[in-house]
Amino acid sequence: MTVSIPGATVPAMTAITVAPPTAADVDAAAARLKDVAVRTPLINSPVLDAAIGARVFLKAEILQRTGSFKFRGAYNRIAQIAPDKKAGGVVAYSSGNHAQGVAAAAQILGLRAVIVMPSDAPKAKIERTKALGAEVVLYDRVKEDRAAIARRIAGERGATVVPPYDDPMIIAGQGTIGREIVEDLAALGLKPDVVVIGASGGGLAAGVALGVKSRVPDAKFYTAEPEGFDDTARSFRSGKRETNARMSGTICDALMTQTPGEITFPINRELIGEGVAASDAEVARAVAFAFRELKLVVEPGGAIGLAALLAGRPDVKGKVVVAVLSGGNVDADMFDRLIAA
Amino acid sequence: MTVSIPGATVPAMTAITVAPPTAADVDAAAARLKDVAVRTPLINSPVLDAAIGARVFLKAEILQRTGSFKFRGAYNRIAQIAPDKKAGGVVAYSSGNHAQGVAAAAQILGLRAVIVMPSDAPKAKIERTKALGAEVVLYDRVKEDRAAIARRIAGERGATVVPPYDDPMIIAGQGTIGREIVEDLAALGLKPDVVVIGASGGGLAAGVALGVKSRVPDAKFYTAEPEGFDDTARSFRSGKRETNARMSGTICDALMTQTPGEITFPINRELIGEGVAASDAEVARAVAFAFRELKLVVEPGGAIGLAALLAGRPDVKGKVVVAVLSGGNVDADMFDRLIAA
Repeated sequence: MTVSIPGATVPAMTAITVAPPTAADVDAAAARLKDVAVRTPLINSPVLDAAIGARVFLKAEILQRTGSFKFRGAYNRIAQIAPDKKAGGVVAYSSGNHAQGVAAAAQILGLRAVIVMPSDAPKAKIERTKALGAEVVLYDRVKEDRAAIARRIAGERGATVVPPYDDPMIIAGQGTIGREIVEDLAALGLKPDVVVIGASGGGLAAGVALGVKSRVPDAKFYTAEPEGFDDTARSFRSGKRETNARMSGTICDALMTQTPGEITFPINRELIGEGVAASDAEVARAVAFAFRELKLVVEPGGAIGLAALLAGRPDVKGKVVVAVLSGGNVDADMFDRLIAA
Repeated sequence: MTVSIPGATVPAMTAITVAPPTAADVDAAAARLKDVAVRTPLINSPVLDAAIGARVFLKAEILQRTGSFKFRGAYNRIAQIAPDKKAGGVVAYSSGNHAQGVAAAAQILGLRAVIVMPSDAPKAKIERTKALGAEVVLYDRVKEDRAAIARRIAGERGATVVPPYDDPMIIAGQGTIGREIVEDLAALGLKPDVVVIGASGGGLAAGVALGVKSRVPDAKFYTAEPEGFDDTARSFRSGKRETNARMSGTICDALMTQTPGEITFPINRELIGEGVAASDAEVARAVAFAFRELKLVVEPGGAIGLAALLAGRPDVKGKVVVAVLSGGNVDADMFDRLIAA
């Protein structure tokens, strides 16, 4: 199975194709990440079960290195850079969780990392990325094109660009989350009926769906997205990659990608196919619920699946349900506002 | 082995004695709590390991029912109330975690619970206790004696008083935490070198020490207490139960018991014998560290062991170290102040 780059009309033998990741790629990623990534716990809570009316398990990727799932895919990608390309290091553009994931993975693997960040990014995020050994290159969000800057650095230094989601190795890395979910539920004599998972570019969703469905084929998946930024759900309905009208205006800063990924979307359409959305108010309630009842720090985008479930979407009454808490990198000021609500 | 009530000079055969809990009592408690208590995860973090210079594991009792370890002991105690005493229900006095632990345990076991709370207790705590099905009796903190009120209710209704720590069954219940620590480390091929554990009345410390040391006799234990409220550490040094000069003046509201327990102290002297202290500023730093780096909500008293370790007390370089995050019940206002520091 291959995914064709849209618009490629050249003969099959020479088509520009990217092979999507397989279950074997996820297994290989798990072997690479063993003893490097945190094997995050699958958290359950009687209060949460009562609130949702199901047996709910939260995969706590907030406890992952750098506070989000992004480390897994980044490490799996960077670990497979060819020996002759290692000296060039890596380059990525991100103002958020991907930046830290790439920086941490490169640091552990001994590669130089350049992260292209907007000059108006929060100082704390810039400092944290630097603290992980990365060189930070700032750009003007209005006047400059971050992708072009990254490509230029890649060209000048021979650096490998580490994309945030549209890469089979990135997806396979996130897929290790799905494997762990299945293994940890099996240890309790359970298997997942429903998995709800945040989608932005769709790398997490694709990876986890692949990791779970290769072992539990009848598990039902839903993506979760902020209201007004539900490009994935709309794309499922129309069958083609839809775009969001806006690029700002939700508290879920981690979930504002404009359109589903080129590689991730065909996977998600096949393995997931249905999405739900949650409003900012519902997300804020979920963050406050996690603080008050679960004692967990979850960033807005990381709480999107929990928010949808607490709002009754989808209907999961009586089922074994998993949501991924994908990140916990929220500033103290923002967190104060959310938990005061 | 028995613990004599101090001052009892009657002949041995008729002495008022309470048999301290044994490892078998902890095993029995574990059987009772199975499928009722949350089997809380043992959390590790590369950032934490680097900060302390050891392999550190946090037993996350913040994820326990009602947000603290107190549920375990309360459930183990209430489950053993004789059939003819059940109709009388239970009574406890507490404005904090013990109140909710008792209320939740009684609710699950189908017993009536009365909780005696100060009339100036935070409304949220009173509401949460009521939401767990308990009847709340308020008293005037200045004019009235809560223990006397509890005894009166016990006499009038035939209710069983559930003490916060000085009870073998309460201690055995907390001991299940120690068992789980040993089991979860064994699954990783490890055993604990050092365990640091908050002490107030000393029930958690005694239980965990019993649960761990029955399986790993050479594990070294330390109690952790707020500066100025280190009655347990001072009692270890003098060999008798010392008292704290003050009953207020630390942010660790859960750790302000005046003196070590009558039953808990002999156990802790034998199994632990050494204590460390942490200042309020160090505790605040630990709460903020847990928020920022670990994405966990820990109340000040629940962070005392982590605070001491982050401050370098005791020296644990290169060792396998466990601290119990004993509770996460902190108001949003207080949490805001702590994480802003």
